[in-house]
Amino acid sequence: MRTRAAVAMGPGLPLEVMDVNLEGPKAGEVLIEIKATGLCHTDEFTRSGDDPEGIFPAILGHEGAGVVIEVGEGVTSLEVGDHVIPLYTPECRECEYCLNPKTNLCQSIRSTQGQGLLPDGSTRFSMLDGTPIHHYMGCSTFANHTVVPEIALAKIRKDAPFDKVCYIGCGVTTGIGAVINTAKVEIGSRCVVFGLGGIGLNVIQGLRMAGADQIVGVDLNDSKEDMARQFGLTDFVNPSKVDGDVVAHLVDLTKGGADYTFDATGNVNVMRTALECAHKGWGESIIIGVAPAGAEISTRPFQLVTGRVWRGTAFGGAKGRSDVPKIVDWYMDGKIEIDPMITHKLSLDQINEGFELMHEGKSIRAVVEF
Amino acid sequence: MRTRAAVAMGPGLPLEVMDVNLEGPKAGEVLIEIKATGLCHTDEFTRSGDDPEGIFPAILGHEGAGVVIEVGEGVTSLEVGDHVIPLYTPECRECEYCLNPKTNLCQSIRSTQGQGLLPDGSTRFSMLDGTPIHHYMGCSTFANHTVVPEIALAKIRKDAPFDKVCYIGCGVTTGIGAVINTAKVEIGSRCVVFGLGGIGLNVIQGLRMAGADQIVGVDLNDSKEDMARQFGLTDFVNPSKVDGDVVAHLVDLTKGGADYTFDATGNVNVMRTALECAHKGWGESIIIGVAPAGAEISTRPFQLVTGRVWRGTAFGGAKGRSDVPKIVDWYMDGKIEIDPMITHKLSLDQINEGFELMHEGKSIRAVVEF
Repeated sequence: MRTRAAVAMGPGLPLEVMDVNLEGPKAGEVLIEIKATGLCHTDEFTRSGDDPEGIFPAILGHEGAGVVIEVGEGVTSLEVGDHVIPLYTPECRECEYCLNPKTNLCQSIRSTQGQGLLPDGSTRFSMLDGTPIHHYMGCSTFANHTVVPEIALAKIRKDAPFDKVCYIGCGVTTGIGAVINTAKVEIGSRCVVFGLGGIGLNVIQGLRMAGADQIVGVDLNDSKEDMARQFGLTDFVNPSKVDGDVVAHLVDLTKGGADYTFDATGNVNVMRTALECAHKGWGESIIIGVAPAGAEISTRPFQLVTGRVWRGTAFGGAKGRSDVPKIVDWYMDGKIEIDPMITHKLSLDQINEGFELMHEGKSIRAVVEF
Repeated sequence: MRTRAAVAMGPGLPLEVMDVNLEGPKAGEVLIEIKATGLCHTDEFTRSGDDPEGIFPAILGHEGAGVVIEVGEGVTSLEVGDHVIPLYTPECRECEYCLNPKTNLCQSIRSTQGQGLLPDGSTRFSMLDGTPIHHYMGCSTFANHTVVPEIALAKIRKDAPFDKVCYIGCGVTTGIGAVINTAKVEIGSRCVVFGLGGIGLNVIQGLRMAGADQIVGVDLNDSKEDMARQFGLTDFVNPSKVDGDVVAHLVDLTKGGADYTFDATGNVNVMRTALECAHKGWGESIIIGVAPAGAEISTRPFQLVTGRVWRGTAFGGAKGRSDVPKIVDWYMDGKIEIDPMITHKLSLDQINEGFELMHEGKSIRAVVEF
C-alpha cells in the first residue's frame, strides 16, 4: 500500500512529507493506522544529526496512537479495530529482561530495532523508487500507517482520545514512571525536578500522585513556573537568580537535601547538581534526560559513600504492554492530566513547524493529527 | 590516669609510642581498656598526611575491642566488665538518620567527631606536658585505654577473642555489610569484587554467605588468588593479563554483566570499570574504597539510563550497636571466618612495622595486642 509520511532524508535536513510504499505485516507484525503522534526531543536529536546512531533515510516518530488495520500471521493478542500505542521499548514477556522485575528493557528485538529494521532484518517502508526507508525506535509514527511487531504494541481502551493519549507513548510514561517505577517515591517525600519541559511536568504530576510533600522545580526559564504549579509544583528555583551555590540553596530549601531528585535536562552538569542536592544517607537521583554523545557525568565518590544513589531510567521503567494501558486509565479517570500539555496541534504537512516551536521553547508538546 | 599510646604527631611522621594522660569518662562516656586493635588503610591515610581532614597530634586507630573499666554519669546500656567494640559510626537511636532504615550514618556526634573531639568539644587525651591530643574517628584504639561515647560502643559476648573480633570494628563489617545491607545481594547472584585486600576478602565471604553463584575477584597481584578462594572466590582475573577491554572480559565471564560489583580499591578508574561491568538493566555497583582527595568518578550517563545503579557504603551500612554483636555471633558460630585474615600480631611498640607490612602488601590484617 501507499501511505503518507514525513521522511528524514539525512542528518540536519527538514523532514520531507511524501507518499511512501508500505508492505503489509509479516508474521508477528501488525499494520497500524496512526491517528496522532507527538513530537519529542529524541526525534529532533536524531533529525538534527546529533545522534551518532542515527540512520537515514528514516521515518521518525515514537509517540503515537492508532488503530489496528491488519494483523500478520500468528498475532494473537490484537485484532483489527483495536486501539493501540506503539512501544519503543517492547515487552515480549519471554526474554531474561522481561522476566526480571528489576528492568523494563526487553531485549528480544533490540539489535534489529537499533539498525532501523523490523525483527526479520528488513524494512516495510520504501521510497516510490524502491529505496528502503528505515524504521525508527521500532515505531515510525510520523507516517499515517506503520508496521510494528505485536510485542511492541500496548492495547488501550477505545474511548481514549488519540490526540491526547499518544503522549503516553513516551513523555507521560517516562516522567510518571521515573517517579513510581524507578524511584518508587514514598508519600511525604521532598523532591527536586530539574527541567520543566514535557518530561519534567510529568515527573511533577507523578510526584503529586505519589504524595510528595515538597516538589521543587528548577528551570532557567521563569515562564515555566505557572504551568508547573498547575501540575503540583510547590517551589520554583531559577538557578541563574540564586546567590551562591545552587546545591547549597536546594539542600537548604529541602531541609537537608531531597529524598529524590530527577534530571529532565540531559545536561551532565545539571545531573551532577541533581545528585549532590540529594539527601545524605538516602537521597536518590534519577537521570532521565539524554545527554549529548560523549558527555560524561562526574562527582566525588564521597557523594555515594555517604549514601546518595545514582540511577537512570528509560521509558520510566515501564513494561509497556502491561503499564501503558493503566496510565491511559489514569488519564481517563482524571488521576493525571494531559490536555494542558498538548499546546499545539499540527497537520503532517506542518511537522517541521513543530520542531521550530520546540526550539523556541513555545510548545510543551506539539501533536500531529492525521 | 596515664596510659600508653601510639601518637601521630604530624602528617607523614611515624607514630610515637609514649605515655599520655587520659581523663576519666564524663557524662555519657565510657572508659575502655583496649585489648587489641587492627591497623586499617584509613589510619594510614591519615598518618601519611594524605587525608585533607587529618588533625594532629592525634591517637589514631578505629578497629578495636576491649573491656569497660568505668562508666560516666547517665550511662545505662553498659557496665564495668562488659566487652565492647568501639564504633566510628555511632548509633544514637534518636537522630533523623538512626530512625531512617535506609541509612546507618548517625549524625548525633558527627561535628565534634570530625574535629577530633568528644561530644562536649574537648579531648580526654593529653601529652604529659598538657598539650591536648585529638581523638580519631571517635575511637582512638591505638591506646591501651580510651574514652568513647556510650552510643559509639557495641556490647559483644564475653567469649569472643579480642584479637580476632577487633577486626569486626571496621574491615569485616564493612565488607560483609556492603553485601548484605547495601547491595542486599540475592541468592544465585553473579558478582565481581575489585581489590582482594582486607575489605575485598570480607566482601567475598559476605557473598558466599548470601548465596552468590559466581564470585569473581579482580586484583593486579596474582598472589591474592589462593586466599580469596578459601573465602569463596570462584574466578580470578588479573586485569594486567587480560587481552583487550577488561569490562568486556568481565561482562563475558559473568554471562552478560554482574548483578552486583564492589570496588574495594579506592581507585576511581576501577570504580568506573566496576560500574560498567554491572549488568544492563539491573546491575548495581557499590563503592567501598576511599578515593584520594579531589579524585572524581565519571561515566557516560547512558550507563545509568540503561539500568545500572551506582551506590556507596560506609561501615557496610551497619547500624553498629545493633549489627556488630550479630556479626560477632556469626564469627563464633563459624558462619564467617576471621582467623586466616589476621596475618600478623604486633606489640604496640611494633606498630610502625604494621604499616610497613601494609605497604609491602604482606599483611591482610596486622593486629596490635596490648
